[in-house]
Amino acid sequence: MDKLNFVSDYMEGCHPLILKRLEVINFDKNPGYGYDRYCESAADKIRKACGHPEAKIHFTIGGTSTNSTIIRAILRPSFGVLSADTGHVATHEAGAIEASGHKVLHLPEKEGKICAEQIEEYLHMFYEDSNWEHEVRPGMVYISHPTEFGTLYKKKELQDLYAVCREYHLPLFIDGARLGYGLAARDTDVRMKDIADNCDVFYVGGTKVGALLGEAVVFTNTDLEQDFFTIRKMSGAVLAKGWIIGVQFDVLFTDDNYLKISKNAIDTAMALRSGLTGKGLVPYMDSPTNQQFFTVSNEEEKRIAEFANYGFMLKPDEDHSVIRFCTSWATRMSEVEALITHF
Amino acid sequence: MDKLNFVSDYMEGCHPLILKRLEVINFDKNPGYGYDRYCESAADKIRKACGHPEAKIHFTIGGTSTNSTIIRAILRPSFGVLSADTGHVATHEAGAIEASGHKVLHLPEKEGKICAEQIEEYLHMFYEDSNWEHEVRPGMVYISHPTEFGTLYKKKELQDLYAVCREYHLPLFIDGARLGYGLAARDTDVRMKDIADNCDVFYVGGTKVGALLGEAVVFTNTDLEQDFFTIRKMSGAVLAKGWIIGVQFDVLFTDDNYLKISKNAIDTAMALRSGLTGKGLVPYMDSPTNQQFFTVSNEEEKRIAEFANYGFMLKPDEDHSVIRFCTSWATRMSEVEALITHF
Amino acid sequence: MDKLNFVSDYMEGCHPLILKRLEVINFDKNPGYGYDRYCESAADKIRKACGHPEAKIHFTIGGTSTNSTIIRAILRPSFGVLSADTGHVATHEAGAIEASGHKVLHLPEKEGKICAEQIEEYLHMFYEDSNWEHEVRPGMVYISHPTEFGTLYKKKELQDLYAVCREYHLPLFIDGARLGYGLAARDTDVRMKDIADNCDVFYVGGTKVGALLGEAVVFTNTDLEQDFFTIRKMSGAVLAKGWIIGVQFDVLFTDDNYLKISKNAIDTAMALRSGLTGKGLVPYMDSPTNQQFFTVSNEEEKRIAEFANYGFMLKPDEDHSVIRFCTSWATRMSEVEALITHF
Amino acid sequence: MDKLNFVSDYMEGCHPLILKRLEVINFDKNPGYGYDRYCESAADKIRKACGHPEAKIHFTIGGTSTNSTIIRAILRPSFGVLSADTGHVATHEAGAIEASGHKVLHLPEKEGKICAEQIEEYLHMFYEDSNWEHEVRPGMVYISHPTEFGTLYKKKELQDLYAVCREYHLPLFIDGARLGYGLAARDTDVRMKDIADNCDVFYVGGTKVGALLGEAVVFTNTDLEQDFFTIRKMSGAVLAKGWIIGVQFDVLFTDDNYLKISKNAIDTAMALRSGLTGKGLVPYMDSPTNQQFFTVSNEEEKRIAEFANYGFMLKPDEDHSVIRFCTSWATRMSEVEALITHF
Repeated sequence: MDKLNFVSDYMEGCHPLILKRLEVINFDKNPGYGYDRYCESAADKIRKACGHPEAKIHFTIGGTSTNSTIIRAILRPSFGVLSADTGHVATHEAGAIEASGHKVLHLPEKEGKICAEQIEEYLHMFYEDSNWEHEVRPGMVYISHPTEFGTLYKKKELQDLYAVCREYHLPLFIDGARLGYGLAARDTDVRMKDIADNCDVFYVGGTKVGALLGEAVVFTNTDLEQDFFTIRKMSGAVLAKGWIIGVQFDVLFTDDNYLKISKNAIDTAMALRSGLTGKGLVPYMDSPTNQQFFTVSNEEEKRIAEFANYGFMLKPDEDHSVIRFCTSWATRMSEVEALITHF
Repeated sequence: MDKLNFVSDYMEGCHPLILKRLEVINFDKNPGYGYDRYCESAADKIRKACGHPEAKIHFTIGGTSTNSTIIRAILRPSFGVLSADTGHVATHEAGAIEASGHKVLHLPEKEGKICAEQIEEYLHMFYEDSNWEHEVRPGMVYISHPTEFGTLYKKKELQDLYAVCREYHLPLFIDGARLGYGLAARDTDVRMKDIADNCDVFYVGGTKVGALLGEAVVFTNTDLEQDFFTIRKMSGAVLAKGWIIGVQFDVLFTDDNYLKISKNAIDTAMALRSGLTGKGLVPYMDSPTNQQFFTVSNEEEKRIAEFANYGFMLKPDEDHSVIRFCTSWATRMSEVEALITHF
Repeated sequence: MDKLNFVSDYMEGCHPLILKRLEVINFDKNPGYGYDRYCESAADKIRKACGHPEAKIHFTIGGTSTNSTIIRAILRPSFGVLSADTGHVATHEAGAIEASGHKVLHLPEKEGKICAEQIEEYLHMFYEDSNWEHEVRPGMVYISHPTEFGTLYKKKELQDLYAVCREYHLPLFIDGARLGYGLAARDTDVRMKDIADNCDVFYVGGTKVGALLGEAVVFTNTDLEQDFFTIRKMSGAVLAKGWIIGVQFDVLFTDDNYLKISKNAIDTAMALRSGLTGKGLVPYMDSPTNQQFFTVSNEEEKRIAEFANYGFMLKPDEDHSVIRFCTSWATRMSEVEALITHF
Repeated sequence: MDKLNFVSDYMEGCHPLILKRLEVINFDKNPGYGYDRYCESAADKIRKACGHPEAKIHFTIGGTSTNSTIIRAILRPSFGVLSADTGHVATHEAGAIEASGHKVLHLPEKEGKICAEQIEEYLHMFYEDSNWEHEVRPGMVYISHPTEFGTLYKKKELQDLYAVCREYHLPLFIDGARLGYGLAARDTDVRMKDIADNCDVFYVGGTKVGALLGEAVVFTNTDLEQDFFTIRKMSGAVLAKGWIIGVQFDVLFTDDNYLKISKNAIDTAMALRSGLTGKGLVPYMDSPTNQQFFTVSNEEEKRIAEFANYGFMLKPDEDHSVIRFCTSWATRMSEVEALITHF
């Protein structure tokens, strides 16, 4: 028997409705690069879903190139991007931000998040130093929602962050690679419109939320969108057959599919969480989304490894590890039940 | 009625066998980033097809980022890449090569190609100049096969080019975005093994030859492959769900599909060529592949525009244009016949 | 006896008044990085000399880093700089512009110059191509005055160029590495104020015109100066002991020294030109400044090489070379006389 | 009366012997870019001084561009440089390293230093993570000697560091912007040969140790020197009148001048240290070189500010600051005495 597999939320293909749609239109002839009817339709639906009818939308390919392309489009040459030290741009992008010429300025994370006060304090200290012109100037702020720890900002936290950003003229960029799982979380007070209202640019993750590939970048601050197509092209963030991404988002934003399929990840994650906790496993953090972290002893880990695949996060000491179980739009409740039973 | 459409070779989705395969494996769980069984199987088949069992294979997303990633992986910081002035890297990549820090050194093209003598002469003149250390040093050579004009190198031309490159220690990189259409051309003496034997790295185009997306990079000079995964990641040339590309190449390199479907593009292109020539249109260049260029008067162009879409290439004078008709693996002969009939 | 030496205009140290001034202030304590009284005084004098009391001035180190720093400060990520194909940024800067991420877009030179019509035609053709978003967008124009061939723009030519640039919102940058020799030329109608009036940013060359090192960058379009100090720092264009450059420009812009010492280069160049022409040498181009080019036969070159050093420019055919003789602020008329006599 | 001034070690011009030498050779004609007799002679003397007759030497302009040029010449595209989080490359270079495409990987400093165990642990943890290919790979190590806190490595510490670096094939680069002050320190067991023996490349600081400008880069690992001139040119680290730097190092490495003049900085620093400590000021750290840090109360700082300029370092709490007094080759003992007396 194959092991159970909770390694990541990008192990399966895509929602069957998408595959069916790709089949139906397979021999239609479309213009390239995202200038097609599907991208247009999907963009309209996303604009509507986030309540910003004037927003500019671009369909990109994957997280790392989306992040680095947005950042290089916004920053002046000597500017850097503020990020939690656990932010994806700070850790797992192989230097893509630096390759575009910019420093990632690390702020200590708290449950994967940073807060308005940290930004304010950083800027205060930065400009207090009379030598600031010799240092990398903070030129924008990057956060992810959900974070890399599966945690979520509250609406008030986003509003505070964005207020500080506006005060200091720092564009705020929200990485929504797993946005669906944040929106579908129980008890969150952050809706898609709140995301759109409280940043300059964000993206709606497709790769991890039901699509084969693709992210939808939404510029609510349309000034920042200038030249973005060419910067995307230069940065490897344009797909020749752009409609393949457009059509997927068109499906995802029809009939509330994006939220519906995200809800499955939440339901299975919550069941997994309470099941494993019931078996005595200790959550590493209180995550309301599809990534669930547990601190396990070496012995526990060994036992789990016999019947399940999971992600490794960090090793707090010699005797313990923090491991990650991911659910997704595709996880079946029976897999979760099997995991709990085996344990 | 919709207009006939010969704008490009990336207007349709993918070969139906691919879609079917994607459907079959849709809910299998695969490891990310290309470390899956499909990529492995596809790589084996490609290694076999090109007769280099030791070659290193990477699956990337699209042409521009594949080109810039390979080039930045090979070149030393102050080095540049020699290319025909009509080469894709020299013209239509929005500065992707320069964004990676490197200059494209232009050589005058002849039917879209450059030759061994040009390389030799360039290097001779370069090192004759006692100030060469103040200039961008040629560090590799880029050619495309087929070229941007649809033309093909002969085997002898490739061998001569590669001999000069080896003599001067310049890696030779062949952009095979349309490689299938080159291999399937009538009367060409260049087989896939000849490509592999006569360069250090090339790629097998998928996007334009039957896949939804994806290119297969083949390093026959495996020394150059060092660190390539991380450089790809940094450059936006890694797909999270890498197996989506792997499985497509696995299909394309099963049962000789890659050549078979490419042959359709050639058959339709040759029919289009002889049909339009028969109607009095003047070919701009002698292209044996799926891109066919014609020099048309403004009046002719106006007439064609009424019933067909095509690509614009250049305007040799006020009264004429050079326009392009593309066929592909998906073009039906009936479309070509309709085009000729309408004219 | 040492050979006569006309290789370049940066073979000697600096004007004796500068050395004397450096000696006088040697043990004064100055703040670093250009925030000192000498830089301030020099900037005031330069502002006055060019008739732009609001201009922003920065003192940089040498030509290549000054060029690349200005260009990277102005261009958006995917933009390029238009330059004559013989422009210094296009040829002799080892890829510094590309290393900052930008393509140099070549225009065919005419006597080292480009003209308003060329810019206009380039832009016209660029935006006519419906694929322009896939190409490097021209974002500024670079010219040098004097050019790399020693030639000069006329005032009307500059005005026309700048008019086109403003119409298309392209900043115009004038490389004045040899500006003094342009201003001191006989019969030129371009004064320093004309330079300043007809561009967005230019620099006043020090390295080649009497200083040990240093260039004075003048932003007449002060919007472009934003963040320039930090971009300079990042680009290696800030000297710790900035006053060493400031004090040199302070001397050069006192008592009209900059023009006075430049005049010596012109006087000796004109004598050299008429002397060698009188001996039968054929000027390659009509240069009114300190660089004089001659087309010589191999035999002539061999003869000259016995008693003089000169610069090599290009080889129009197997039997001839174009060689360069440079004079400078430091050239003595007796050296020129000796050259002519020996020939 | 002017205030006493201990702000930095680059406030005065240069050693009088240098100025005199510049005067003597002012009208000699030299080839450009460092290919002159003075650079050759200086390089020979430096090779001798460090006991590496085969070392390759380059003369560069200032610290920031020297650091970024060396780092970009060594690192592969996706690699980063390990540095103490207080290292100059990590803090005060306005993003120059990132602008060259590379991430600075921060290690927590201890008295401004990092140690062999930290490197080993970092590498161990890095390669333990199965996702390391998605992260910036450590490709070299940067340290400064003296550090930014004026502290020094012991010979054994350098040897241990270099042993780890060699084991992991990480080139070790030592920033010697203040090398003279490290070598002249009392009780140090690190001589110039120890520096040269225990790294792959280092530089001998001129700007802060008696020269107007200039640093001497020494490659003891000559493999790393490949293409370095062109990379320097591209990076703004070549001076047209290169001999101006060469002649300064020629003076500094004649008659042991470099060490002799450095000794003055040490003597005055030690007097300053013991004098201020005697007056009750508390040293922040035990620095044996020319930078002396003290933790002062706000009231103390206010008093000092009345009669002396100094550098600001950091603010450990609301009521205290850490301030820096610098001496240099040019500091007179009478200045130190006046400082102590005033306090």
